[in-house]
Amino acid sequence: MNKMIIGTLISMLAGPFSVGAQEAQMTRLSKITVDADHLPAYRDALAEEVRASMELEPGVLSLYAVFDKEDPTRLTILEIYASRQAYEQHVKTSHFLKYKSGTLHMVKSLELVDVDPLLPGLKIK
Amino acid sequence: MNKMIIGTLISMLAGPFSVGAQEAQMTRLSKITVDADHLPAYRDALAEEVRASMELEPGVLSLYAVFDKEDPTRLTILEIYASRQAYEQHVKTSHFLKYKSGTLHMVKSLELVDVDPLLPGLKIK
Repeated sequence: MNKMIIGTLISMLAGPFSVGAQEAQMTRLSKITVDADHLPAYRDALAEEVRASMELEPGVLSLYAVFDKEDPTRLTILEIYASRQAYEQHVKTSHFLKYKSGTLHMVKSLELVDVDPLLPGLKIK
Repeated sequence: MNKMIIGTLISMLAGPFSVGAQEAQMTRLSKITVDADHLPAYRDALAEEVRASMELEPGVLSLYAVFDKEDPTRLTILEIYASRQAYEQHVKTSHFLKYKSGTLHMVKSLELVDVDPLLPGLKIK
């Protein structure tokens, strides 16, 4: 049984206004502009950070980063954490801190947009 | 064996500049603004379309839709298709055409941004 079905069953049992397991999920879009001179180094640092987070942190559900084809200095990361606590643990990890301090001078702008997923249990096949 | 490993093996066998299976993937961000009066109906129509696409179309790898918390009339969809052909088939399906024609009057703006994923094989746990 997948998480979407479990979430739906919990919602049905608990009523439409209760907080089901999936509603604890924290989801965000990070919209970043990178200095063009540092783009290859930034990509490497981000890839290392994403791989470590996905492998080592059960509460990091995804960090799906995409670069605009027309302007690859602009990227968006779909960040999905199992809970706010999982996020707070994530930003204390050594791999996140290494990425953050190592790329600070490469990042020209950073916008964090809190979002609500339409179907929180949806996956990538 | 997951797709990321298969993709990596193909790349290793074929050399770094060849087109591996994963490089055929088509990825896009759809940035949409919805008329506030139609938001509940729009959400229902989109949820129905996403569920049908994910269930019926093997080439639709994800349609992960998120609504800005501060302004839920603004949404972003991370669209991942196995190939351009899978995308072209998708836009001809009855569930997509029903969504498209049924929501045309609800959508105030639509921006399509072609993107390159950092790690194409990444999943959502």
